[in-house]
Amino acid sequence: MVTAFPTIARLHAAYATGASPDEVLAGVYATLKTVDDPGIFITLVPEAEAQAAAAALGPFDPESKPLWGVPFAVKDNIDVAGLPTTAACPAFEYQAEETAFAVQRLLGAGAILIGKTNLDQFAMGLVGVRTPYPVPRNAFDPDYVPGGSSSGSAVSVAHGIVPFALGTDTAGSGRVPAGLNNIVGLKPSLGTLSSHGVVPACQTLDTISVFAGTVADAEAVYRVMCAYNPADPWSRDPSAACKPSAAPPGLRVGVPDAAGRQFGGDALSEAAFDAALADLEGLIATAPQPVDMAPLFAVASLLYTGPWIAERYQAIREIVENRPEVLHPTTRRIVDGASAYSAADAFAGLYQLKDLARQTDTLWQTVDVLAVPTYPRPRTVADLAADPIGPNSELGTYTNFVNLLDLCAIAVPSRFRGDGFPAGITLIAPRERDGLLSDLAAHLHAAAGIPIGRSETPVPAPVAPPGQAAADEIELVVVGAHLSGMALNHELTGHGARFLRAGPTKPDYRLFALAGGPPERPGLLRVAEGEGVAIETEVWAIPAEPFAAFVAGIPAPLGIGTCFLADGTTPRGFIVEAEGLKGAVDISRFGGWRAYQASLNRSSPS
Amino acid sequence: MVTAFPTIARLHAAYATGASPDEVLAGVYATLKTVDDPGIFITLVPEAEAQAAAAALGPFDPESKPLWGVPFAVKDNIDVAGLPTTAACPAFEYQAEETAFAVQRLLGAGAILIGKTNLDQFAMGLVGVRTPYPVPRNAFDPDYVPGGSSSGSAVSVAHGIVPFALGTDTAGSGRVPAGLNNIVGLKPSLGTLSSHGVVPACQTLDTISVFAGTVADAEAVYRVMCAYNPADPWSRDPSAACKPSAAPPGLRVGVPDAAGRQFGGDALSEAAFDAALADLEGLIATAPQPVDMAPLFAVASLLYTGPWIAERYQAIREIVENRPEVLHPTTRRIVDGASAYSAADAFAGLYQLKDLARQTDTLWQTVDVLAVPTYPRPRTVADLAADPIGPNSELGTYTNFVNLLDLCAIAVPSRFRGDGFPAGITLIAPRERDGLLSDLAAHLHAAAGIPIGRSETPVPAPVAPPGQAAADEIELVVVGAHLSGMALNHELTGHGARFLRAGPTKPDYRLFALAGGPPERPGLLRVAEGEGVAIETEVWAIPAEPFAAFVAGIPAPLGIGTCFLADGTTPRGFIVEAEGLKGAVDISRFGGWRAYQASLNRSSPS
Repeated sequence: MVTAFPTIARLHAAYATGASPDEVLAGVYATLKTVDDPGIFITLVPEAEAQAAAAALGPFDPESKPLWGVPFAVKDNIDVAGLPTTAACPAFEYQAEETAFAVQRLLGAGAILIGKTNLDQFAMGLVGVRTPYPVPRNAFDPDYVPGGSSSGSAVSVAHGIVPFALGTDTAGSGRVPAGLNNIVGLKPSLGTLSSHGVVPACQTLDTISVFAGTVADAEAVYRVMCAYNPADPWSRDPSAACKPSAAPPGLRVGVPDAAGRQFGGDALSEAAFDAALADLEGLIATAPQPVDMAPLFAVASLLYTGPWIAERYQAIREIVENRPEVLHPTTRRIVDGASAYSAADAFAGLYQLKDLARQTDTLWQTVDVLAVPTYPRPRTVADLAADPIGPNSELGTYTNFVNLLDLCAIAVPSRFRGDGFPAGITLIAPRERDGLLSDLAAHLHAAAGIPIGRSETPVPAPVAPPGQAAADEIELVVVGAHLSGMALNHELTGHGARFLRAGPTKPDYRLFALAGGPPERPGLLRVAEGEGVAIETEVWAIPAEPFAAFVAGIPAPLGIGTCFLADGTTPRGFIVEAEGLKGAVDISRFGGWRAYQASLNRSSPS
Repeated sequence: MVTAFPTIARLHAAYATGASPDEVLAGVYATLKTVDDPGIFITLVPEAEAQAAAAALGPFDPESKPLWGVPFAVKDNIDVAGLPTTAACPAFEYQAEETAFAVQRLLGAGAILIGKTNLDQFAMGLVGVRTPYPVPRNAFDPDYVPGGSSSGSAVSVAHGIVPFALGTDTAGSGRVPAGLNNIVGLKPSLGTLSSHGVVPACQTLDTISVFAGTVADAEAVYRVMCAYNPADPWSRDPSAACKPSAAPPGLRVGVPDAAGRQFGGDALSEAAFDAALADLEGLIATAPQPVDMAPLFAVASLLYTGPWIAERYQAIREIVENRPEVLHPTTRRIVDGASAYSAADAFAGLYQLKDLARQTDTLWQTVDVLAVPTYPRPRTVADLAADPIGPNSELGTYTNFVNLLDLCAIAVPSRFRGDGFPAGITLIAPRERDGLLSDLAAHLHAAAGIPIGRSETPVPAPVAPPGQAAADEIELVVVGAHLSGMALNHELTGHGARFLRAGPTKPDYRLFALAGGPPERPGLLRVAEGEGVAIETEVWAIPAEPFAAFVAGIPAPLGIGTCFLADGTTPRGFIVEAEGLKGAVDISRFGGWRAYQASLNRSSPS
């Protein structure tokens, strides 16, 4: 473990002030030695090879390589060319010839691969003990399971060996181990990360997930990987899910009602969840409302008691049918169950899911986000030895339904339990609300006042969004009656627009007072470069839908085109048709509408 | 059969001038007697009951009841309260307690139910002969099969007994019988008509379909039924699919390439298809392009050789497992095949479909509509007696893949074959393009110069769809690369925009080819009133949110302002900053971008 957690920002600050990747990598391998857990990695990249990869990056350049020099690990069911993929089944092992699509994007962004991590065999489990390799130890208490199936990835981040690691998540494998090791687990909307190069578990439900010390790091890594992959039939347009977003003050949060609060009788876990909810209440204007979890739990039960188990069977069919003896006994026991299901049963299961999903539609009409415990209670290695199935199922109580319902989720550490073991809360929303979840999660994480993973580094305050338009807003330059304090400014403020900045155009314009009115209207005419004057403007951010209505209502000869500002930006702005300048008065000498209006007021008889 | 086909417009004109529903209904039952085909109806509503239903409608009021007094039939796998539902399996028969959601909407709109029609048992077939009831006779030649599974519904419309009838369509049951009986078969986008109250065949693929004499009638009936049904898990928001739309002049149409032209060696069918294509070419600006049908045929083969057969098994599982002897021998033979498939096979099939569907994505990047024969060749009752399976499969060549790929389609009659038997063409497009298909289909139907069904009534000229934007859309005038069929048109169609109308501007403009590019861009400059030329435009309706993104992406010197069209409307349109015309070439003499581009192609060195 490390005392100072290596967030991406911290590493980049070090690189910016002269640290070398060799030093950072030396720290990684030293930490690994200190942690001394032989269960974390199945394949470790030799330090010299990692150094060679770093040397090939060229000079520090976080602009074009946002993950420059950032070490990371990937779960060993994800292909990296030249390394073996085992999925924690030695008999399944093959040398990957191609690097998974998402991993390739990380490498392209300058990230340095350290190794391939241990997992529940074929990603089948939420515990981390279903592996023929040494079981990774929970980063906080070796009596407890590390969580799975992405066990090694989660533990490697919790110890600060790497700032981030990839997992996969079908039933909760990217969330449960995050919750058990005090780190962030981002489970994105299905299809936004290409599964090309990932060993399938349930193809209809699988996604790559991200473990990181902070929400900001998890988001940054997610955005690097996000890209539509036409070669992957499961890939979907990720643009909406990948947009940064802010949680609005009026956010409606749902929490499990009394019947939905399941902690397996563990009072410490229940108290920890209530502490997390108290932090959450401090962030939102309206108190969380209790919701009926029954339809969600019914969906969850489909995953292991319904025909979806046949997807797991299909994924490793060759092994199950020809050499089942090479499987972990628990894996074998699970997939053996698949043979009971016919194709008709499979469709019957799909129909059931469709029915239940429709029932949950009403839930999302009343809440924007659902906040649940990441798991009911931590379970011990001994519990799992006594019963390999039951405690595993319990751990998935609040995760199993998420992918079946095409939701997105993020697991965030919350205030520790009374016994010092970490606790976690998971935020869930309909698909493509990933950005909103991350914003709320970042604030919630910071509010908990806890350190990152096992380090002593406090969770940093969330970075305020920059003074620019968000992805779902449009920057609009106004020069006349829409300026703040003027007659038509309410057309902006009344539609959710917000002021961003004021400043002049390039000296490429002439400003006219058009004929007609009231209201008197300006015409901003672009002339040859440098042959006009600079005109005072204001830039506003306006949401897309009111912007459309705004544009639709602008009368001729005005229109919306590109405005060239002195600060080098080129937002949308008013332009004028030359034909509309008949009878117009050139008022360029005032340098702006406000000064022109002031001159009128001065000269008008009083 | 009737000499004058009873379109909805004709009936309503009669009602408006004093005809009574009793007269119309008397005509229905008289025609039925004349046709004398005991195979059409399984349950007939007694004439007195139909008259009672008409009497309860109140005075003629086509505004609030758009189907006031219009007789119709429904396939007997759709529930009507108080009548038996048999699905053409007497042992399955039950008295329906509730009327199907879609039928209820028809009744609410004033339509009068005449009866429940015969079908291939459990809608399993495309032939109409797989029924224990008398087989309905093909309306044109009793040697040929009527087509199925919606046999009775199609034949009832072809004879003009009713203006329209409901079928269902999983593999082509709403299209093949339309093609075999010279009527229109509208197969809408999945989920836009609620399946609540329909006996399932393959729940993931089923839809209600509409048979009618004209496209306008089929569309009118479809619009009445279209409504989201929250109680039906398969129901989807129908608003986009239900919107009227116009096929733009630059529409790109694909047709099967040489390998994809399959007529079973029937030269008459091949000639009929080419005649239909000739009519189609007369309606579109660009010649149809040959497309590779292989991925579509591969999808089609999944339907009966893959695990989807298990959906049909699941739909009638109780019967198959407990009393299979009550099934039609062919039905039994088909569903017996399902037991070979495991749940793992079912998922493997879903994966295969996902892969193939992704392969067909590229097809829809190059064409907007696919035009195929409705079936390769008509088959005889004797053919089916000799081989109950093979000819049925052949009939589905051009229909089986449509629902698996979530496409919409419409079967339209085309010029008759050389032997006087009807022929048909089917137009196919991605989901929610139903309106566009109907517009093209209406023109194509009229162009064929054929009568409706077996009547002597010629197909009426299509009524132009109301070419205006809905409340949540914005009208946008395009003059350059965004015109239909041009390089940037996908920026409109890809964001839910739909073509409204084409036409010139007022003669107040000059058109320029701007400096720079590619892509080459036009600049539409407004000059003094009457002192310019009229420029050809297209008006598109684009939803608000994509419109905002569209405006945000327009580069200088272009912008969006007001465009003054010759028809007196003033939609949003491209304007240009005068400063941006440096180096531009005045191309006004061409009258439009399309003519200018054509001149470039002609003058380029070859």
